[in-house]
Amino acid sequence: MSKIQFKKVAFIGMGLIASSMARSMRELGIADRIVTSVRSEETIKIALELGLVNEAFNNVSEAVKDADLVVIAIPLGGYEGVFREISGYLDSSAIITDVGSVKEVTIDIARKYLSSIDMFVPGHPIAGTEHSGPRSGFAELFQNRWTILTPTEDTNKNAVEVIKSIWTLMGSSVDIMTPEHHDIVLAITSHLPHLIAYTIVGTATDLEDDLRQEVIKYSASGFRDFTRIAASDPVMWRDIFISNKDATLNMLQRFTEDLTSLQRAIRHNEGDKLEKLFERTRKIRRGIVEANQA
Amino acid sequence: MSKIQFKKVAFIGMGLIASSMARSMRELGIADRIVTSVRSEETIKIALELGLVNEAFNNVSEAVKDADLVVIAIPLGGYEGVFREISGYLDSSAIITDVGSVKEVTIDIARKYLSSIDMFVPGHPIAGTEHSGPRSGFAELFQNRWTILTPTEDTNKNAVEVIKSIWTLMGSSVDIMTPEHHDIVLAITSHLPHLIAYTIVGTATDLEDDLRQEVIKYSASGFRDFTRIAASDPVMWRDIFISNKDATLNMLQRFTEDLTSLQRAIRHNEGDKLEKLFERTRKIRRGIVEANQA
Repeated sequence: MSKIQFKKVAFIGMGLIASSMARSMRELGIADRIVTSVRSEETIKIALELGLVNEAFNNVSEAVKDADLVVIAIPLGGYEGVFREISGYLDSSAIITDVGSVKEVTIDIARKYLSSIDMFVPGHPIAGTEHSGPRSGFAELFQNRWTILTPTEDTNKNAVEVIKSIWTLMGSSVDIMTPEHHDIVLAITSHLPHLIAYTIVGTATDLEDDLRQEVIKYSASGFRDFTRIAASDPVMWRDIFISNKDATLNMLQRFTEDLTSLQRAIRHNEGDKLEKLFERTRKIRRGIVEANQA
Repeated sequence: MSKIQFKKVAFIGMGLIASSMARSMRELGIADRIVTSVRSEETIKIALELGLVNEAFNNVSEAVKDADLVVIAIPLGGYEGVFREISGYLDSSAIITDVGSVKEVTIDIARKYLSSIDMFVPGHPIAGTEHSGPRSGFAELFQNRWTILTPTEDTNKNAVEVIKSIWTLMGSSVDIMTPEHHDIVLAITSHLPHLIAYTIVGTATDLEDDLRQEVIKYSASGFRDFTRIAASDPVMWRDIFISNKDATLNMLQRFTEDLTSLQRAIRHNEGDKLEKLFERTRKIRRGIVEANQA
């Protein structure tokens, strides 16, 4: 493949992921110009001040005009509006990609508003922190992480290769899978863990005042890890759960059955049953340590 | 208070916590001799080889004989046997302490086997890693952590001060509370989080083979933090859940109610409800970051 070089990259949204991509693309020198469309004047100011983009707009049409790459990087709840808006301004040769955490719904929306979805390469970098906003990004965010692309049968093969190359250049490994499969895998590895973390931290916030202070004080005993996860962007996660409803509820159902069974084991002092499960879960951790994701 | 100096410190058990304490006491030079009683010949070998102790026994009576400090640092399920055994060999002036994660049950057992519990200072360092065994310890484990002591009305005040001083010397802050209160605080900050982490990792291990491999591969998306917690010592945790049954089941009940309510919100697309909760949980995280426990 020839060298990747874009004339104009348009980011819709400039949060943690987009600002990290913009930083990395700048370092790589693969974009002549980077622009963004964001809602708030404050973000426009920050994006320009940090030198993340050459131009920042508060409307999508100006941003995508003449762009040869459009990256949608906003919470899923905004997709419908963005796809509707950009459809009239897209260059027919422009590649469109996104970084959303749920893929089936993304493709459904794209299909609804784009005259053709052949140039849309749905993507999802498995990377992030609990911080959000343009200031929280950094160019190395994707290094040694996975990015999943979920092209459909209609997707242009060359467009997939281009997006794959960008992620590879940014330090990420790339996997291709169907959108359906992606949504199931992420439901168990990401969406359910976040839902549970939000829940337990919520349970703790409902405790009486003095007890809540102690939860903070003694958080090092296990709770702390959950609070980090439960500090993730509220709007983004609201949209994820609703967009991946079926897979999340399915995994949640399995989890609840397992939890109820453990609850029963504790109530009836079934130590053997507990120990056996805990031995098994240790092995999964070993697998992750060996796979270098720990 | 005069300088803390023990003639003979006897550790019952030589896992992560005991071996960290032994290392720290060595560095502090507050024990003329350190001995241990452990079950396995392998652990005896390791304890001697690492220089953690001067002598290692496979029986409790020899270890505690003439000791002026006895530290019980084994899973809670072994407490009954240990208290029964040591009761006949303890020096009447010896201070006994422990590091167990549940305190009411510990005091009940001590009361049952010791002729008097005035020299028993129940303790619990809020410190640890997912690793276990004598090799996993390190002298700095307790630095900038909390240790909770739960003396009863019968506990000798001077003994409490001595144990408090040891923890302070080892770098820990010390809090005093009732055993009942301790068990409730730990149920929400530690026991429930561990139970949930074990459950979700268990749920993932029950998935079909190919999906399980992907859980490992994409664990960076949230799941990973749970697997670290769920790699903790199986026997120790089996005993904790059964020993703190009431408080754990109580917190679990609250958690399940909250989870069910979120499940319903997802099913009915109640985005506002989700977002509101997620905003609240973010605040708890900020509290922890400010309290310097993150």
